[in-house]
Amino acid sequence: MIKVVAKNYIKSDKVDEFITLAGQLVKDTNSKDKGCIAYDVFQDLTDSHIFTFIEEWENKEALDQHMSADHFKEAMIHFKDLMEKPGDVNLYKKVD
Amino acid sequence: MIKVVAKNYIKSDKVDEFITLAGQLVKDTNSKDKGCIAYDVFQDLTDSHIFTFIEEWENKEALDQHMSADHFKEAMIHFKDLMEKPGDVNLYKKVD
Repeated sequence: MIKVVAKNYIKSDKVDEFITLAGQLVKDTNSKDKGCIAYDVFQDLTDSHIFTFIEEWENKEALDQHMSADHFKEAMIHFKDLMEKPGDVNLYKKVD
Repeated sequence: MIKVVAKNYIKSDKVDEFITLAGQLVKDTNSKDKGCIAYDVFQDLTDSHIFTFIEEWENKEALDQHMSADHFKEAMIHFKDLMEKPGDVNLYKKVD
């Protein structure tokens, strides 16, 4: 299992647009991408322009396949215009 | 529901000690703390000294109660000595 935490800093005037696009990406990913255990987006309670995807994938192959899917690549192109600064992405394994 | 992502940068020579202490905190929290939906710790696949707690709580009260529990406060005192630099904590709500 691979856990992904992808933190994004969205321009204040682009938050609504981001929410719409991210919602579509969550829907597409959950319905179309094999090996997706969980894929959700969260909004920071204090800084409402911080949005973080928290994802769980069966393995690295499933994550790679997601990142090469059209719905992911198209969303990334749109997101780029909405970002205030580059975000952070971390891939994790669970500590047992 | 509240999601918490707490990222920690652990000194390279303290990783084993952190894993033991974090494992105990995960066990205590899951077994003792009311309103805990999920509480796990993850290790970064690239930077093995980055450890992130990903938590899910029923509400803010449950999270506050956890943070005032003895097992949490004692773990925080130990963790302080193991950290390379201050970490990041974000509290989130799910975007629907």
